[in-house]
This record gives sequence, structure tokens and C-alpha cells, in this order.
Amino acid sequence: MFREKLGEYINKIDTHLHTLLDSKEGLIYEAMRYSLYAGGKRIRPVLTLACCEALGGDMEAALSYACAIEMIHTYSLIHDDLPCMDNDDLRRGKPTNHIVYGEATAVLSGDALLNYACESVLTADIKDSKMQLDALKIIYTASGAEGMIGGQIMDMEAEVTQIDAETLSLLHKKKTGALICASAALGAVSAGKDPAIFEKYALSLGLAFQIRDDILDIEGDVETFGKPILSDEKNSKTTYVTLYGMDGAKEILKEETQNAIDSLHFLGTKGEFLKELALYLLDRKN
Amino acid sequence: MFREKLGEYINKIDTHLHTLLDSKEGLIYEAMRYSLYAGGKRIRPVLTLACCEALGGDMEAALSYACAIEMIHTYSLIHDDLPCMDNDDLRRGKPTNHIVYGEATAVLSGDALLNYACESVLTADIKDSKMQLDALKIIYTASGAEGMIGGQIMDMEAEVTQIDAETLSLLHKKKTGALICASAALGAVSAGKDPAIFEKYALSLGLAFQIRDDILDIEGDVETFGKPILSDEKNSKTTYVTLYGMDGAKEILKEETQNAIDSLHFLGTKGEFLKELALYLLDRKN
Repeated sequence: MFREKLGEYINKIDTHLHTLLDSKEGLIYEAMRYSLYAGGKRIRPVLTLACCEALGGDMEAALSYACAIEMIHTYSLIHDDLPCMDNDDLRRGKPTNHIVYGEATAVLSGDALLNYACESVLTADIKDSKMQLDALKIIYTASGAEGMIGGQIMDMEAEVTQIDAETLSLLHKKKTGALICASAALGAVSAGKDPAIFEKYALSLGLAFQIRDDILDIEGDVETFGKPILSDEKNSKTTYVTLYGMDGAKEILKEETQNAIDSLHFLGTKGEFLKELALYLLDRKN
Repeated sequence: MFREKLGEYINKIDTHLHTLLDSKEGLIYEAMRYSLYAGGKRIRPVLTLACCEALGGDMEAALSYACAIEMIHTYSLIHDDLPCMDNDDLRRGKPTNHIVYGEATAVLSGDALLNYACESVLTADIKDSKMQLDALKIIYTASGAEGMIGGQIMDMEAEVTQIDAETLSLLHKKKTGALICASAALGAVSAGKDPAIFEKYALSLGLAFQIRDDILDIEGDVETFGKPILSDEKNSKTTYVTLYGMDGAKEILKEETQNAIDSLHFLGTKGEFLKELALYLLDRKN
């Protein structure tokens, strides 16, 4: 049931992304599509659709916002992988964008995805202007200097210095948490509800997601994980595992997953998919 | 009179940019401000304000859109100057962003400016939701893969191959023309008028602007121009001067300036500043 629904959401998202981008010609669109279709898990856009559906919202609007979030997530990965940033050759088991298209095109295709996220929302057939503006505000606050980009800067600074638990938590709240929270908030907005309604859920989910990533960097299988393992150790990075040990990190992961699930009481049976999603992420292998 | 008015517009723009950014702390904002305050000519945002005022529009809205355009223009320069792109050390007479802050921060501060352009429009106190959405659509269509970024990709491709006059014209229409046209269109939108009302003016102005740039690359003084001269020749670039010769390029520059001025008849005396602006750009030294 959960797997079926998850596949349905992912299918909707992929179809919409293809509709938005497949007819466009030229190198820049080719490079954008390469990373956008490289087998991402679509967690963020799935979250938007699921939150929207749990509240009985406008699925067409949610789909548009969901795809914008996925484009922004993808652009951040392209820029993050650049030689001047993390210098990664492999992402989702494939050569990274700059390996295939060169650095200049990788920079521009990241820029173009951030830009197109906004364009695609603006050209969607959504009548409610206020909802559109609210959605854009949520998206671009989350992805900006106070959110995701701020987290990336903190991450760079953390590479040259030891950081404490509090700083690590803030770093991840910004770097991955902000976009995950925005994804859930967009589901609420597309249902005309308070954007903060899923905040607890999304914060715990985002934290659990990051801890799982830190664990997979050590215990993961490079083939399944799709990116190099032991990279944190190589880069002497502070992670949940270095701070709390493997057992400690696994304990916090369980707790945060439970916190996410507990926050869904208000939805009753309509929270079933979101509950299953948290459990699914707890065990993910990639 | 013209100089006074120009100074007044620039002052408004600078004040608004400072209001938006000066209170923000952290490395990313420092890097954003460095390039945003590096002495740009503010041609694009001035155009927005002047077009708005010529039509009696909402100057507060226009100011918000104008600053968004300037942020996008600035981010494009930061990314353009990167080692993997044009690899320029000098811009507006100062070390480029990546020379001062390093490549990673330069990439991120460019991203953050593109992102903040959207955020700043969304958080501006503008009541008219439809006008906001129209403005954002104009901005992000112009700056995206069909506009400015598309032009940058064309520019990269043009570096490794000889291009003809038609391709050069399309390249500049996208790379610099799109944002200049958007700047004028935003002035019209903030006055509730047809965004295309200044299209002829802006197209001619954009073309004239580019030709003047090509001429300055040869005849300019490095101190006044603020960036290296003879860089086009060094990079074997096709320019208006290589295609039409210096005299031919100067002739087209004059013609396009006249075309821009002629298109303003419908404004009567209210077109005076825009006319002077075209003449000012005809003779600019930087």
C-alpha cells in the first residue's frame, strides 16, 4: 500500500518534470535534465504531495510547488559537487554534472534550475495569486541565505574547524532541514492551511534524514548508496556519528522518527502515508 | 538636469539595496554586498525607475523590482568571472568576488543573490498580488535559460567557433538584452501598463549598450573601463567591431541610439530622461 502510493507520487512528479523540460532544446536544458533525471529519491516533492493530500488540498498546485523544490534541491547538488566545493565525481551512482558537461555548464545549469523553479511556478495554471506568492515565499526563504545556502556556508566553515552538537544541529536545520520543512509547508499552503502545521513533523524528519545519511556514509554500500562512502571520515567532518557514536546516532534516529510520527496525531488515519514515509526513511539504504 | 535626476535614481537604488542587506550578518552577505556595492553603473534599475516615472507608476514597487534586477545582474557577473567561466580577476576596477572570497563562496554568493532577488520582491510591501506575479514572471523569464543564461551558454559556444552577425545579435539579445528589456518592462508593469510598451526602446538601447562595450574593449582606458581591455581580441571573440569594423560599429551604435530615441514619441516631454539616458550611454567611458 505505502510502496504503491509512493510510486504513484513519484510518477506524478517525474511526469510533471518531463512535461516542463523535455520539449526544450539546447545544451543548458540537456545538462539540467541530466541531473534532474539522475535517479533522485524525490523525498521532498513526495512530502509536498503527501501533505497536500492528507489535508485534501489542490494537488495541481502542490505538484507545481513540489517540482520547484526538486529543481532547487538538484541545483544545490550540482553546485555542491563542483571542484571548488565538495569536488565529487559521483552522485546517485553517476558521474556528476561537471564531469559530464564541464564546470562552466554545470554552474550555469545549476543557476538555470534555481531560476526555472520560479518560472515554472509562475507559469503554472494556478488561479489563486495569494497562494502563489505564499508558496514562492516559502520556497525562496528556505533555499536562500537564511536557509539552504546559509547551511552550505556553515558546512564549508565546519570543514576547517571542529563544531559542537548545537552548531551541527543548526547547520543541518538550514542545509537540509529548511527545504524539507518547506516541502511540507507547501503541501499545507496548497490546502489553504497554516504552513506551520507540519513543522514538527518536518523538523524531526529532516534531522532523522541527516542522521541516516551520516550512518550510511559509514555502513552503506557504495553501489546502493550511489556516492562514495567514508567521505566524511576522509574530510574529517563532524557528523552525528562522530559526536554520539554509531549506537548513539542510531538511538537519536529512532527517537526523531518517533517524534515525527507522534506529531501526526491531528490527522488521524489521514496521516498513515506520512507515518510510513518516516519509517521508510529510517531504514533507507540510499 | 539629466545628471541630477540620474544621481537621484541611483541614490534611491543604493539606499534600498543597503536597507535590504546591511543588517544581515555572515560571510555570505558580506560577499553579496561586496559585489553589489562594487560601483556598478545601475543602468538596469535606473531604467526601471525612469520607465515607471515616465508613466506615473508606483515608484515603491518599481524600486523593489529594480533592485531585484540589479541583484540578478550582479550574480551573473560573479559567476561569469569564475575561473571556469571567463576567469577574470578584475571587475569595475576591483578584484572579482572569487579573488577576494574564494571560488566556493563566490558560487554561493551568486546563488544567494539570484535567490534573494526573488525573496526581496516577495517581502516588499506591495499590495497588488497580480502585479507582483507579473513582475516576477518578467524578471525570471529574462534571467533564465531562454534569456540571460541562454545567452551565456551561447557566449561560451561562440568562444570556440566563429559566429555570424545573426547569431551575435541573438546572443546579445539574450545575454544582455533580455535583462535590459525586463528592466523597462518592469517600469511599465509598476504603472499598470503593457510590459511591451518600451520594447523597441529597450531592444535598441540593449544593442547600443553592447556595441559600446565592444568598442570600449578596444578604445577604452583600463582605469576608467574598470576591466581589462583587449580581452575580446585575446579570446578571439566575435564582436560588433570584428564583424563591422570600428567605423561600422560606431555607425550602428549611433543608429540604434536614434532608434531608441525615436521610439519614445508616444511619451512626449515625459520621455526626456529616457532620451538623455540613451545619449549618455552612447558616450559612456565605462
